[in-house]
Amino acid sequence: MKLFYAPTSPFVRKVMISAHELGLVDRIELVPAAVSPINRNADVVAQNPLGKIPALVTDDGVALYDSRVICQYLNSVASGQVIPPEGPARWTALRDEALGDGLMDAAVLIRYETFVRPEPLRWQEWIDGKFEAARSAVRGIEAQAQALEGRNDIGVISIACALGYLDFRNPEFDWAALAPRTAKWFAGYKAHPSFQATMPK
Amino acid sequence: MKLFYAPTSPFVRKVMISAHELGLVDRIELVPAAVSPINRNADVVAQNPLGKIPALVTDDGVALYDSRVICQYLNSVASGQVIPPEGPARWTALRDEALGDGLMDAAVLIRYETFVRPEPLRWQEWIDGKFEAARSAVRGIEAQAQALEGRNDIGVISIACALGYLDFRNPEFDWAALAPRTAKWFAGYKAHPSFQATMPK
Repeated sequence: MKLFYAPTSPFVRKVMISAHELGLVDRIELVPAAVSPINRNADVVAQNPLGKIPALVTDDGVALYDSRVICQYLNSVASGQVIPPEGPARWTALRDEALGDGLMDAAVLIRYETFVRPEPLRWQEWIDGKFEAARSAVRGIEAQAQALEGRNDIGVISIACALGYLDFRNPEFDWAALAPRTAKWFAGYKAHPSFQATMPK
Repeated sequence: MKLFYAPTSPFVRKVMISAHELGLVDRIELVPAAVSPINRNADVVAQNPLGKIPALVTDDGVALYDSRVICQYLNSVASGQVIPPEGPARWTALRDEALGDGLMDAAVLIRYETFVRPEPLRWQEWIDGKFEAARSAVRGIEAQAQALEGRNDIGVISIACALGYLDFRNPEFDWAALAPRTAKWFAGYKAHPSFQATMPK
């Protein structure tokens, strides 16, 4: 399999952690791919018309995207448990994946607004709205922090990637101050070799 | 079940079409919920910390989001075929769902930039980039237009919602001019009662 990737994308990281946990890393060839909302990458567009990463090309030559679909596919290839097959554990995992993804979306839009967009065109209310969404998401994670313990499904992987991305891009946001129980869980989660092997650089 | 919804959201529409196709519409109570990227809706935030719709509360009182998770859940409740259970049909359906979702994301971001953001703060390169992503997505759909015929899975539902949203918000974009075979398929798809019952107003 080939994965179009960038080492700083939290959505790519979600896929890579899943691949580590599923024992599939050695079967994935990484293809470095820089993308931006303004400048499109033709190599990526050829596989994913949306021009976004991660995009996976399977051994059968089928292009799959986005990160959620790729994680479901990898779980299927490995007959794994990153995606619980049914019941409440499945819906909690998928719902928490959406929560982590939504937090990442907010953080990436903050990054675009405060780093990519020309300064005179930045809109403070938009930035405020995205930070409020991020705070709300962190509070939502904190409200169920006890339920994160001991899990290793796509929900906690996504939440960990989102928190790691905030630490990487917005350390001054200090999410841990809003979510002390989550911070305690995250301190333990960080020890996973899959998390250590995928730290953004 | 309760669904927080707005009649113009393409992501809500994806859920509602799925509910129609799965025979679950009568079991869903609709709760009108206006959301915006700037002003958050406390009733929605109470169920989905991200403050976005659609959000579903199951009969067991569990909150589920986003649209992908809700569609998977509804398919499971109905033991349906909107989400194919395995094999190539599954990956095509989920990949096409991501393609339709990505097209909707681009269209919604265009809407925010050109309608919600104050005019002096609009950035033409961002708008151009999102329209290019939309054109690229439409071309990607066109490249596989023959494979859309006869399907009724979440992939074609998502693509139909995206194209319907473009027709609703950006008729001047004229996606059909880029994708004549897709336009022919869409003309037939539109006849589905589920599509007619969920037209944005």
